[in-house]
Amino acid sequence: MTATSEAKGAAAALPPVHVIGTGLIGTSIGLALSSVGVDVTLEDQSETSAALARDLGAGRTTGEVRPGLVVVAGPPDVSPRLVLGALERWPEAVVTDVTSVKQVVLLDLVRSGVPIDRYLGSHPMAGRERSGAISARADLFTGRAWVLCPHDGSDPSATALVARLAQATGAAVTTLSPQEHDEAVAAVSHVPQVAASLVAARLEHLSDHAIGLAGPGVRDVTRIAASDPGLWTQILSGNAPAVAAVLRDVAADLGRVVDALEALGAGEDDVADAPGARAVLARSIADGNAGHARIPGKHGAPPATYAVVSVVVDDRPGEVARLLTDIGAAGVNMEDLRLDHGLGLPFGLAEVSVLPAAAGPLTEALTARGWRIHS
Amino acid sequence: MTATSEAKGAAAALPPVHVIGTGLIGTSIGLALSSVGVDVTLEDQSETSAALARDLGAGRTTGEVRPGLVVVAGPPDVSPRLVLGALERWPEAVVTDVTSVKQVVLLDLVRSGVPIDRYLGSHPMAGRERSGAISARADLFTGRAWVLCPHDGSDPSATALVARLAQATGAAVTTLSPQEHDEAVAAVSHVPQVAASLVAARLEHLSDHAIGLAGPGVRDVTRIAASDPGLWTQILSGNAPAVAAVLRDVAADLGRVVDALEALGAGEDDVADAPGARAVLARSIADGNAGHARIPGKHGAPPATYAVVSVVVDDRPGEVARLLTDIGAAGVNMEDLRLDHGLGLPFGLAEVSVLPAAAGPLTEALTARGWRIHS
Repeated sequence: MTATSEAKGAAAALPPVHVIGTGLIGTSIGLALSSVGVDVTLEDQSETSAALARDLGAGRTTGEVRPGLVVVAGPPDVSPRLVLGALERWPEAVVTDVTSVKQVVLLDLVRSGVPIDRYLGSHPMAGRERSGAISARADLFTGRAWVLCPHDGSDPSATALVARLAQATGAAVTTLSPQEHDEAVAAVSHVPQVAASLVAARLEHLSDHAIGLAGPGVRDVTRIAASDPGLWTQILSGNAPAVAAVLRDVAADLGRVVDALEALGAGEDDVADAPGARAVLARSIADGNAGHARIPGKHGAPPATYAVVSVVVDDRPGEVARLLTDIGAAGVNMEDLRLDHGLGLPFGLAEVSVLPAAAGPLTEALTARGWRIHS
Repeated sequence: MTATSEAKGAAAALPPVHVIGTGLIGTSIGLALSSVGVDVTLEDQSETSAALARDLGAGRTTGEVRPGLVVVAGPPDVSPRLVLGALERWPEAVVTDVTSVKQVVLLDLVRSGVPIDRYLGSHPMAGRERSGAISARADLFTGRAWVLCPHDGSDPSATALVARLAQATGAAVTTLSPQEHDEAVAAVSHVPQVAASLVAARLEHLSDHAIGLAGPGVRDVTRIAASDPGLWTQILSGNAPAVAAVLRDVAADLGRVVDALEALGAGEDDVADAPGARAVLARSIADGNAGHARIPGKHGAPPATYAVVSVVVDDRPGEVARLLTDIGAAGVNMEDLRLDHGLGLPFGLAEVSVLPAAAGPLTEALTARGWRIHS
């Protein structure tokens, strides 16, 4: 792993780091920090798990443990207890937790009455469908947002230290209050997860013929429905009020759509007998357009509209490579690529997203090299 | 466009085809058939639209119109009238419509009392976020499913002719009853559209910081939320009973999730006071796992589990091309590729899906060529 100079600079300013909890996130933090020279010690309630993380290169499990920074990477429901323990064990150290819900942890700590100026929560926006140390990667946080959640009582120097931790892993630092964080992840992460799961659940009992009609749309909508039920039960439970608030709005919108559809379906002879029903449907899709347009484009920039150049690609080794070589030879920077294989056919479509100004030259260049293009 | 021998064979057995409605789908059908030598005539209530389709190469708008097959490619709400007109104008021709809802069209035709043995509905499972003749492509149907929906009174020879039409465009033929079709597309297309739109709508009023946390998950879930409100209002209206039936189940599941979250959120001191709530959440995610697993893999085969090899790629022209060249050189057939750029960072991750047996050799080959791999 070759880290950026920014990550190396941040790492050089880090004290020894102690990681409690060597699952996917904790082990990945250990791997990332160790790769840039930070002294990392590891701890887990399971000694086997800690030893595995050590063997993977995430840090050491023996010798002196004198951290300047402690990272609690346990599940949401045990994190407050682990944070309190860390504050007590290392009275000089800054402590952060990296669970994906922040208010519930802070609330528990405030209730404990222990001074928490050396604590602030944080949340690296990274994860995988897989879990455990064995799935950890040194670059899990590379290019991802890492949210810092300072609170009224947290010391600014603690915030600065956790920011350096995030930077040393290659992440991009963002700061939000715990409440802002929880409301944001409810909308951009937890609610999409619930929606994907509920839509996917409706596919379970379809006939083979019916499920055979599944195309790219439903594949995209349900991809994250493959996620782990145990982990997501904890995440949703830990952010219950914020997720419930957004889901109540979704449920109200859904209720209006169902009412509109029932009104339209009831009028068999003249569906125009359902005044306003079509407007409800159109408004629902239009509101979705507006929300979709808010999602930032690549590189954290404002939403960019890319042009898509579609290329027919034979389904055999090397064809996509040959295509991408030709794209590179045209001097065009590809922003995104989707491959879409057909049903039982020996070829597929490659949809190449490029900046609009590059679409014309790219189409010309590829056509000249014999590709079948449809842009 | 070079068509497959199967498409050419089907085209050779086609009579002249008349296309009514030169929007995205009708023009694409004209382009596909013309490219394999079929005599295509075009008609649209807008002469300008028909002329545009003609200029794009989709067929002719002058000379004798004596079709053996008429394709009605109008919006759902005018299709029954157009089908009836075609049956009357060409008493020997087979007529099909290609709207994305099938029962409502058939019901209208049955009610008319006109003999409809020469009619059957069909539905190419292809579309784009864009609309109009200008977005048409000769290969829009290449590798997509094209559903035939014969009814009790349709002539088997009519079904065979529409099957040849579908094959001539490069599509893969599937046969379902109109009811089976409508129920299937409700679950695999219309309900995912509604869910994506409703989730996306919740993003509209987030702060810039909050929406900045959007990652690959919510991007996938909401991609189709960019679709056209007018078209989708017609599609949802035309399949109202089937969509409502599935959405009612989704709403019931959603209601249970909201209740569980409210029970968990209410018990501030002891969330364990919400018996059964966590089980509801876990069951919802697990049911989603089961439904997700039903979605077929590539090539219409049973669900395949691919291994993902993740590669760090610098964000400059030619880097992905170089990667794909190296994958091709390793003799590995890539099943899918996802590019994921970071937030404000000069590189991204390429997630390369391959058959599990190919993951090891690919990782070795790429590592040997200096790529940073995490599989």
